[in-house]
Amino acid sequence: MNVHRALFDAHVERWSAALPAGDLYAPMAYLLALPGKRIRPTLTLMACELFGADPRNALDQALAIELFHNFTLMHDDIMDAASLRRGRPTVHAQWNVNTAILSGDAMLVMAYSVLGSDPYILSVFNQHALEVCAGQQLDMEFEQRAEVGLAEYREMIRLKTAVLLSAALRIGAIKAGATEADQQRIAAFGEGMGLAFQLRDDLLDAFGDPAVTGKEQGGDLRNGKKTWLLIRGLEVERDRGSSALRDQLAHEPSGRDVAVMIMALRELGVEQEAQQEVRRLAGTALEELGRIDPTGDRTAALRALAISLIDRAA
Amino acid sequence: MNVHRALFDAHVERWSAALPAGDLYAPMAYLLALPGKRIRPTLTLMACELFGADPRNALDQALAIELFHNFTLMHDDIMDAASLRRGRPTVHAQWNVNTAILSGDAMLVMAYSVLGSDPYILSVFNQHALEVCAGQQLDMEFEQRAEVGLAEYREMIRLKTAVLLSAALRIGAIKAGATEADQQRIAAFGEGMGLAFQLRDDLLDAFGDPAVTGKEQGGDLRNGKKTWLLIRGLEVERDRGSSALRDQLAHEPSGRDVAVMIMALRELGVEQEAQQEVRRLAGTALEELGRIDPTGDRTAALRALAISLIDRAA
Repeated sequence: MNVHRALFDAHVERWSAALPAGDLYAPMAYLLALPGKRIRPTLTLMACELFGADPRNALDQALAIELFHNFTLMHDDIMDAASLRRGRPTVHAQWNVNTAILSGDAMLVMAYSVLGSDPYILSVFNQHALEVCAGQQLDMEFEQRAEVGLAEYREMIRLKTAVLLSAALRIGAIKAGATEADQQRIAAFGEGMGLAFQLRDDLLDAFGDPAVTGKEQGGDLRNGKKTWLLIRGLEVERDRGSSALRDQLAHEPSGRDVAVMIMALRELGVEQEAQQEVRRLAGTALEELGRIDPTGDRTAALRALAISLIDRAA
Repeated sequence: MNVHRALFDAHVERWSAALPAGDLYAPMAYLLALPGKRIRPTLTLMACELFGADPRNALDQALAIELFHNFTLMHDDIMDAASLRRGRPTVHAQWNVNTAILSGDAMLVMAYSVLGSDPYILSVFNQHALEVCAGQQLDMEFEQRAEVGLAEYREMIRLKTAVLLSAALRIGAIKAGATEADQQRIAAFGEGMGLAFQLRDDLLDAFGDPAVTGKEQGGDLRNGKKTWLLIRGLEVERDRGSSALRDQLAHEPSGRDVAVMIMALRELGVEQEAQQEVRRLAGTALEELGRIDPTGDRTAALRALAISLIDRAA
């Protein structure tokens, strides 16, 4: 992974340094330079190498994926009225909303500019880009709704998060000339990993160490955010006739006792259930890798990356 | 023109009718259905036919141009805090800002989805799409600046308005296999027409008949919008040592006497100068058409459209 990450870092730095001056471009360079894992472009390069090509061949496609991802961050932060991202002001907080809208738009155009004109890559990219928009739309709808089911939540996460990991891998594979069957396997691996990754995120909010995550423990719970944990917790409570979570949600966010909510999730068995679900999703995803590479030699790095993502503490 | 317009109208209606349900897509259909001239897609079809191909071959590219144009309208209306477009509520007024951001994003992705994968068309589209963003960026910057020069204004209009007309024509020409030289000519025609079209817009604001335009006479002047007329008017005033425009601009918008400002523009010779400039730009543009088609037979419809746009009263 480090080799691929270093390759990509150099590529994105060259690209950022070549941007024209002005407020249309400066927010792009600013957002790209915030500390981040750069998982998606790394996956593109690794998939390209896995199927026998030089990962450098996929640098522009990896860049397109990363530009697209950052475009969604720029606009999602406006929609969520978020003032901080990775501990730094968001683009609309640092500049203003109009600049964040317009610079995001231009960033999406630039993603297409570097993506190239391979018809198959374009169609995978377009399809997944639209799915990411549909996922964000669902996410906003869920905030307005009183009840969201676990299956709906999973579909939202699939669209909003998992499909882009899937597209990142598939595009790297296409670039290397992988067979359709192998493309489907690597895409399924990505989707499963994306679901596991997001569920791990939900777990970290409630059960992570705030000194490591850098976030308030249970921030999502306090805000009543309909995550896997809260949705499932309320389901189990309904079955059992208990109401610790529901009672806390009846208060305003500032009046909620987050420690009580976390305790309730533990007692309801939801923490354990979520951990099992992460392992199940990751296991199924890794099986897809096994179908591509039965000996495991060529996929060792991808496996290690996958495991580091689902075991991560921050 | 009517044939091309009818072809396109049927295509866009089919496309809109096939959109999935939900708030991600409904704003697209809503905006596309507002009464509009649909100049850009019509130009794409006409250019395709001019260079010897069936205009139906360029329907998807014309749709891509129209989707892109409507995406910019959706986002520009947010940035300009505009509540009305063509007499109807803007998307963010009808739904909300977040929906307008996200539906606009998805509309841009869908523009690419229908554009196809011709590398040359993609590169023309990408370049011009980025220029349109740069034009909107300049437009917003100019609002914050005390002084804007005529050359800067022209460059802003070129980027924000003229290049998309140019791209619409060029893409139609590429689709028909036109030579590079002919592509450059039709693109130059489009750019000149776009500049003339926008200057005609500025003239109609001050000197048009509000009963025909449907807008408050001198609305741009009241708002101190830095149009060609106001920029040039202030220049001439400075040279002459007069100050009617400047005096009015010293008041708040609600206290400005628009009739005095319109009179001043007439007396300073700016109305006449702008009319000459429209004719000059249109004349140069039409010369480019003459280079493509010396007898004028094949370009009669394009010429008629161009003349109707610069002579229009609304």
